Amino acid sequence: MTAETEFVPMTVLDELLQFLKEDIPAGDVTSDAVIPDVDCNAVIRAEQDGILAGIEEASILFSHFDVAITSRKRDGEAVKKGDAILSVSGKAKQVLLVERTTLNILGRMSGIATRTAVMAGIVKRENPACRVAGTRKTCPGFRRFDKKAVMIGGGDPHRMNLSDGILIKDNHLALVPIEEALRKARAHSAYKKIEVEVESTADAVKAARAGADIIMLDNMTPGQVRETIGVLKTEGLRERVVIEISGGIDEGTIRDYAACGVDVISMGALTHTVKNFSFSLEIQPPGQL
Amino acid sequence: MTAETEFVPMTVLDELLQFLKEDIPAGDVTSDAVIPDVDCNAVIRAEQDGILAGIEEASILFSHFDVAITSRKRDGEAVKKGDAILSVSGKAKQVLLVERTTLNILGRMSGIATRTAVMAGIVKRENPACRVAGTRKTCPGFRRFDKKAVMIGGGDPHRMNLSDGILIKDNHLALVPIEEALRKARAHSAYKKIEVEVESTADAVKAARAGADIIMLDNMTPGQVRETIGVLKTEGLRERVVIEISGGIDEGTIRDYAACGVDVISMGALTHTVKNFSFSLEIQPPGQL
Amino acid sequence: MTAETEFVPMTVLDELLQFLKEDIPAGDVTSDAVIPDVDCNAVIRAEQDGILAGIEEASILFSHFDVAITSRKRDGEAVKKGDAILSVSGKAKQVLLVERTTLNILGRMSGIATRTAVMAGIVKRENPACRVAGTRKTCPGFRRFDKKAVMIGGGDPHRMNLSDGILIKDNHLALVPIEEALRKARAHSAYKKIEVEVESTADAVKAARAGADIIMLDNMTPGQVRETIGVLKTEGLRERVVIEISGGIDEGTIRDYAACGVDVISMGALTHTVKNFSFSLEIQPPGQL
Amino acid sequence: MTAETEFVPMTVLDELLQFLKEDIPAGDVTSDAVIPDVDCNAVIRAEQDGILAGIEEASILFSHFDVAITSRKRDGEAVKKGDAILSVSGKAKQVLLVERTTLNILGRMSGIATRTAVMAGIVKRENPACRVAGTRKTCPGFRRFDKKAVMIGGGDPHRMNLSDGILIKDNHLALVPIEEALRKARAHSAYKKIEVEVESTADAVKAARAGADIIMLDNMTPGQVRETIGVLKTEGLRERVVIEISGGIDEGTIRDYAACGVDVISMGALTHTVKNFSFSLEIQPPGQL
Amino acid sequence: MTAETEFVPMTVLDELLQFLKEDIPAGDVTSDAVIPDVDCNAVIRAEQDGILAGIEEASILFSHFDVAITSRKRDGEAVKKGDAILSVSGKAKQVLLVERTTLNILGRMSGIATRTAVMAGIVKRENPACRVAGTRKTCPGFRRFDKKAVMIGGGDPHRMNLSDGILIKDNHLALVPIEEALRKARAHSAYKKIEVEVESTADAVKAARAGADIIMLDNMTPGQVRETIGVLKTEGLRERVVIEISGGIDEGTIRDYAACGVDVISMGALTHTVKNFSFSLEIQPPGQL
Amino acid sequence: MTAETEFVPMTVLDELLQFLKEDIPAGDVTSDAVIPDVDCNAVIRAEQDGILAGIEEASILFSHFDVAITSRKRDGEAVKKGDAILSVSGKAKQVLLVERTTLNILGRMSGIATRTAVMAGIVKRENPACRVAGTRKTCPGFRRFDKKAVMIGGGDPHRMNLSDGILIKDNHLALVPIEEALRKARAHSAYKKIEVEVESTADAVKAARAGADIIMLDNMTPGQVRETIGVLKTEGLRERVVIEISGGIDEGTIRDYAACGVDVISMGALTHTVKNFSFSLEIQPPGQL
Repeated sequence: MTAETEFVPMTVLDELLQFLKEDIPAGDVTSDAVIPDVDCNAVIRAEQDGILAGIEEASILFSHFDVAITSRKRDGEAVKKGDAILSVSGKAKQVLLVERTTLNILGRMSGIATRTAVMAGIVKRENPACRVAGTRKTCPGFRRFDKKAVMIGGGDPHRMNLSDGILIKDNHLALVPIEEALRKARAHSAYKKIEVEVESTADAVKAARAGADIIMLDNMTPGQVRETIGVLKTEGLRERVVIEISGGIDEGTIRDYAACGVDVISMGALTHTVKNFSFSLEIQPPGQL
Repeated sequence: MTAETEFVPMTVLDELLQFLKEDIPAGDVTSDAVIPDVDCNAVIRAEQDGILAGIEEASILFSHFDVAITSRKRDGEAVKKGDAILSVSGKAKQVLLVERTTLNILGRMSGIATRTAVMAGIVKRENPACRVAGTRKTCPGFRRFDKKAVMIGGGDPHRMNLSDGILIKDNHLALVPIEEALRKARAHSAYKKIEVEVESTADAVKAARAGADIIMLDNMTPGQVRETIGVLKTEGLRERVVIEISGGIDEGTIRDYAACGVDVISMGALTHTVKNFSFSLEIQPPGQL
Repeated sequence: MTAETEFVPMTVLDELLQFLKEDIPAGDVTSDAVIPDVDCNAVIRAEQDGILAGIEEASILFSHFDVAITSRKRDGEAVKKGDAILSVSGKAKQVLLVERTTLNILGRMSGIATRTAVMAGIVKRENPACRVAGTRKTCPGFRRFDKKAVMIGGGDPHRMNLSDGILIKDNHLALVPIEEALRKARAHSAYKKIEVEVESTADAVKAARAGADIIMLDNMTPGQVRETIGVLKTEGLRERVVIEISGGIDEGTIRDYAACGVDVISMGALTHTVKNFSFSLEIQPPGQL
Repeated sequence: MTAETEFVPMTVLDELLQFLKEDIPAGDVTSDAVIPDVDCNAVIRAEQDGILAGIEEASILFSHFDVAITSRKRDGEAVKKGDAILSVSGKAKQVLLVERTTLNILGRMSGIATRTAVMAGIVKRENPACRVAGTRKTCPGFRRFDKKAVMIGGGDPHRMNLSDGILIKDNHLALVPIEEALRKARAHSAYKKIEVEVESTADAVKAARAGADIIMLDNMTPGQVRETIGVLKTEGLRERVVIEISGGIDEGTIRDYAACGVDVISMGALTHTVKNFSFSLEIQPPGQL
Repeated sequence: MTAETEFVPMTVLDELLQFLKEDIPAGDVTSDAVIPDVDCNAVIRAEQDGILAGIEEASILFSHFDVAITSRKRDGEAVKKGDAILSVSGKAKQVLLVERTTLNILGRMSGIATRTAVMAGIVKRENPACRVAGTRKTCPGFRRFDKKAVMIGGGDPHRMNLSDGILIKDNHLALVPIEEALRKARAHSAYKKIEVEVESTADAVKAARAGADIIMLDNMTPGQVRETIGVLKTEGLRERVVIEISGGIDEGTIRDYAACGVDVISMGALTHTVKNFSFSLEIQPPGQL
Repeated sequence: MTAETEFVPMTVLDELLQFLKEDIPAGDVTSDAVIPDVDCNAVIRAEQDGILAGIEEASILFSHFDVAITSRKRDGEAVKKGDAILSVSGKAKQVLLVERTTLNILGRMSGIATRTAVMAGIVKRENPACRVAGTRKTCPGFRRFDKKAVMIGGGDPHRMNLSDGILIKDNHLALVPIEEALRKARAHSAYKKIEVEVESTADAVKAARAGADIIMLDNMTPGQVRETIGVLKTEGLRERVVIEISGGIDEGTIRDYAACGVDVISMGALTHTVKNFSFSLEIQPPGQL
């Protein structure tokens, strides 16, 4: 186990076992009925190219059920179609027990990491100081792992949840004026950054003046982003704030946005529209051990 | 609440609250800091065409936090871009509390239902007796809702989990011969159907003879499927079994497979590669109530 | 540990620890107050003849508390009064901690297995193709173990719970006609067997024609059962269905029912009216180690 | 709801919902598939004579699922075969959801209460000051309800669990001498009664002298019990202690034991060997409302 | 209920019920045994002067058990000895059920709020821009409520837990140099403030230069604090950072520290050494209703 | 691990991990960001004199995270300022993970044990038969550990919770007369001691006559206590009851009360007004291993 897994094994294992219970509320009736008490080897292979994520979670699950990991690649590693990414050895029933849950985790996390790495690569080539970030648009029940996959792919996790940071959005501003919102937010605690979502240059300036730490330019064109950054510079406010853009950014447009000089580009699609990364698990019968 | 929600409100609410805890482990610091104690109206709109799913879950969440539902469409209904699908009224803080979790649920479930309905439509036009089915390739932590969305889209849920049905796959058959597996499975209990995954016509015949209730033809071409069904008919075995096909079926090929005379076409992509259905939630300030 | 225990150790251990918490919400005050920190040997003996069940659960509990199992018989084994069935060695306080919970589990499970084996034996001698089955009339909180004990005694577990199979009973048929119920059930999913409970020959025929996989003849006399099976044969429907009988069957009548040619005899009394199997646990003081 | 239920609704409801989850881990597939969204009336009837217990638990379950209780008898009431004991009205699906769990609870609890009342009646007629008591030989997972049923039947619950009282038994005395055990127990806390299990008159005297509050005479004949009580009187120790007897007492012998002048007779069989009390639930179709 | 309680009722209620379970694992045996099914009024009074906290928690608990709140003061309100702070009306058994847990919560939270308000008052009079803050030195199991009480008393909650903010302390700096730590922390995410604990002026300057958002001066005398702030000003770094001091500050010294021009004074003693605020609850018998 | 910890490791570990989750809901972002994967040694030192408590809990936490304990003092041991009380060795990230939670536990428990030992010492010197006892005035969520610390300091834990013993207080007696309360309590069960709180000599006599096992004299002066004990002796009732006093007893008055001849002196302040015991944890960098 690497240092990372040892860190919060308690809660990660808890969540992984919840996933398993979802798949096995009352035993695996097929294995119970037909599988003899034999050992086996098994290997998980990538069926496409990309960036691995979920290896650590897979390892925790196999280990918890006394299936030994005989070799594995690491989270974040680039793999090619056909590569063996995890080889295990143990009771056949135990391998079958965690097979589907493990592949589901690997498939989604590697899918996210691969996409994030692609987007981060485009951005970095255009603007080395700019980062790609996730959002809270994750699959319910899988937030922690979606966020981790974004990080493995080279993205910034952004705030983890509503308790984790102050982000004043359009729906807040429908209820309270921007300056009042920022004043209250600053009075709340000295220990959290304050982000404001704005849709106009004027509001961006207002937010920066009122003490926002981060300004999210929502659904602006690259031209509008450039103009807004220009005005912030003129007003001497650019240095004080992190500039994030969000909304409708995809492979086709991300390069233009990165070129505008923003600090962070956040994309809901990194976690809300995931293409599964295809893996297979093959068991070798005991005679072949 | 419709009859469907009343059915297992206990465990559904439990799971929905878990999703909320994931997003709010220790309060919503933004609302805490900046939002006054006011009421508001809010409306969720579809930002694309498709089939709705998750309305019931959204309703349970809003209701649990004393936000009244003033109008809503129903799960399974077809909607157009711009349609209001759920209107609510209550404390602004409560609406903000469940906003993201609700949209995440609606977005994924409606995405699944919409895709399933499209695939089921193609199949039905070619072969009215044939059904599309889900698999266990769901997002960990969201299984129940992924399966429900498949059903709302007109699909067969297939087995819910490893406790729910006997399915003898290639990895089982690497460990025990097909006839022995079927004999053991039948001795286990008289109360469960037995499915076998095969990769050849010969194994399909063997499985049908040995008492399989369902035969899954894995990764066969339409030609191989037709040949296998032909041989089963010749041997007088076709009537005894349900024929499922699986593996690498997509929009381009599903019509050909349906035309082969199979009973069920199962597709992992219905739940492992989901395109988010886009919704927005807009709060109307108290002055506009 | 045998292969069976390794299968779902997670949830089984969870449930066993819940049982322990029920007996020890806040420590064992007696041992805390009076027992020194010494090791001991202990032996559990059968105080009657019968079939063992619960050995695996007892082993999991002792092992979890670092009490070594020095010898044990196996679940399903026939034992005589006085036989040592489990010998352990460890901290005296730990043995005392799990003593009562372990004996309660062994006593109920072995009681169920012993009774099931007796009934299954009678049936088998009369009709080797016929099986005894349990029902859902189990002790709340102990379902999993009641069902397992039935299986250890040679019985069919029947459906585990309401999520596990479709069984249309008299209370359903008070609300929906039999053919409509069967049509809806078949449309629900291709992956579950459908059972119907009937009280007349006519309904049995109706159910078989409408596609029932299993027909439960409820509260019929042996004569009525024979007549119903006869009509099903005449109609060419016997082969298509599993015939289960249920209701008021006991040691005195079960042989006659088995002789009727039914496939399964289900009995609520196997789990709702259990005679405890008597065991004792004796600790040997450290001086005698 | 009576005052008793209002007392710890939180934890009782939690446990009852756990029982329900055991029966419905993932929905009621039969009702889901075949039952329309209709209301119904339903009545639970006793199918034998006896003492009711579990009415409160049944009421909590029905109420939690919005099924109205239209009339009901009370826990502890004597009923005759055919009596309606609980009538309800609500959604048919909800009634079906809790039917089996409710009947399982009622059947076991009423079985225990009925048996306890019979034994307590025999004892009371012989010795009005003497009480029947339960033990910790309950069904794992159902302890709280087994104990409550004993109380409803007129029995003393005895200690609820290992945290609840100090009881020094033979296995403790194999590890520590009786006087030392009592000295340590008294030093532990001034707030708990101390019980000692003894197998001889000499040990009974020793325990009373060393400060035991309760002495359990284990497996003694009525003659031995009389002799022991006599010696305790002679020594002036009888007044200081409660005398409990236990071990192998049944309908045939309990009267003789009661006549010996003991204070409590505890019986494992009250909860470890329960005869189910038979109830039926019948749904009336909506046309008959 | 005020807006604040409605905010996360789910998790707050969960935690409050956990506290109750701790006090009532298996019912309230005293009330069960002796209290009749009667209603009562009850009033909680302050037995000292101070600032109230815990009223909201008390209200949630009483309401959950159907005890009506007839009048109450608000969290944060100043009260005098003898003031009625909460009056309730309901079943006597329910009032008794939550009495102790409620008083324990009120006593600790009001104790913390009162002390915080005293310290914040001293600070504010000396330096209106300076705030008092809590730490993570809270009672395990009560963190959320300790932090809330600090806020009610006018303090800054500081970071809630290890997931909530980056604070590089001496034990981290024993393992990694300060500049490297800050570089890594900034690369981690753009969304969290970074705090560094330093013990010298030189390290404070180093931290500010390397991009720290907050600098905690640990265990410095007022003179050292003044000197450090002076150097930061000279270097043009004072504006960029929040200055927090911590370590050994009490009623006697806090005024001097506030006068140094720091932004925040954090004090472990606010939550690790709490003087209980004394409250009484008096029940009025039904005759006096 | 000592025998005590092995006793209920399950539930104790569960509670300790809950405490940790409170501090680390989603990982330790500081260590994640800045700490390399290195081993370290660390030592916890007392920063004051007193009695240790919480060593066992600290050991369980470190061990659970694979941090080896290289030396430690024992619970109940007297320590001096500067003493090393626990030395550990393991991954630096793991040590940092449990540091604060461990110190919070040690600080509170040792604070309680130290205070209890001081009070028990005063009492013992005056009246060797008299004990100091805790109450239920503990910090919510920490009851088990507050009570254990009282015991380690030499105190009687008193009843653990409302399920653990019968204590009839003023609020009960406002609802039911004292003799009736005692009669009902005795009829409830033969297995629990019955305590009554009284405020007058007359009520003390009444309670003793009616069968109370323990009488708590509430808020009496030493003179009133002496008088009450005198009357009880005169009436021949003193031997039958344990005499407890409670209410407003502190360091200044406890000696006088002990001298009155009472059996137990209970003090809420032992757990509701705790002075933190100061400890430090210092990490030694890997170069110094």
